[in-house]
Amino acid sequence: MSTFPSSLERLIEAFARLPGVGSKSAQRMAFYILSLDVAEAKSFADAIMAAKGEVHRCSICQNLTDGDICPVCSDHRRDSSVICVVSDPKDLIAMERSREYNGVYHVLHGVISPMNHIGPDDIAVKELLARINSGEVSEVIMATNPDTEGEATAMYISRLIKPFGIKVTRIAYGIPVGSNLEFADDATLFRALEGRREM
Amino acid sequence: MSTFPSSLERLIEAFARLPGVGSKSAQRMAFYILSLDVAEAKSFADAIMAAKGEVHRCSICQNLTDGDICPVCSDHRRDSSVICVVSDPKDLIAMERSREYNGVYHVLHGVISPMNHIGPDDIAVKELLARINSGEVSEVIMATNPDTEGEATAMYISRLIKPFGIKVTRIAYGIPVGSNLEFADDATLFRALEGRREM
Repeated sequence: MSTFPSSLERLIEAFARLPGVGSKSAQRMAFYILSLDVAEAKSFADAIMAAKGEVHRCSICQNLTDGDICPVCSDHRRDSSVICVVSDPKDLIAMERSREYNGVYHVLHGVISPMNHIGPDDIAVKELLARINSGEVSEVIMATNPDTEGEATAMYISRLIKPFGIKVTRIAYGIPVGSNLEFADDATLFRALEGRREM
Repeated sequence: MSTFPSSLERLIEAFARLPGVGSKSAQRMAFYILSLDVAEAKSFADAIMAAKGEVHRCSICQNLTDGDICPVCSDHRRDSSVICVVSDPKDLIAMERSREYNGVYHVLHGVISPMNHIGPDDIAVKELLARINSGEVSEVIMATNPDTEGEATAMYISRLIKPFGIKVTRIAYGIPVGSNLEFADDATLFRALEGRREM
């Protein structure tokens, strides 16, 4: 039975290992690479090695950066006494999109998840405690996702921080702006009612 | 507004250019690359360059190969007097899976498509004519897809070949094995009736 040439098979396998890519999509991607000219294919391969070689964690907040310190931490207009804790670099970028927040961040790179054997030592909790221990922090905002693992992680970290006498807050729950009350789930509606504020 | 480091942005853009990949999937893929160790990332980048460097068209049938002549063409047990014309290397592999065919192939790398400005000169038609012209061919089986462009391409090529006095056949239309008559479309049912054979 005939198959593709082995180097093409290996490329298909490499693409198939990417998250969310099945064997048919991997095939299409590999054929796309074959359709590129050599310079374009090389720039793709180089992009992989460049990202891998240059991107690492900010030595302060653990955000991804290609410098020593990320743009947020090195911006002196930001209030470094308020730390917003997120689980993922993508969440940091989402927070920045709101343009409302002027503090700094701490990226955990994951959440505590006993099911997946991820404990506090597997995410950047001790780096957060070190920052808090250095003084100068007035508030820690827990902005992990409002799901079971995000909740548990926020709870765990807030218990670690409280002995330092620092204010720990959690981002608000409620109905999303622009959404429809009719389709909101019970838990969200309950939280929205509970968190109601005077107008 | 903070974004990802520029080398990470470039990798996300590279993935987003792949067929069927949106910006969110591209982000997930780029993060996957960051999660690999350096050797794994290098083997991904190398797979791209190896496929690009080693895979080319078989000098006889235009199938993809990393040798000079593809495994089918270099297999002397195959009947080289029967040529099955397919539009795509993936179709060749599908035909091979049936294990029924013992002839050789010709891969067009596309179909004639005036809408997309693809004419006969943009696909491997002249290479097919050169093979037929060399003598020794007794039958050409047109196995392009049974859609408008595949039909038109089969029709066009069969008209070019007929003056050579060679038998030109088209793969059969009909209801797929294991499918349900109830859900077959009218055109397929009509073709299935038209092509009925004595039992």
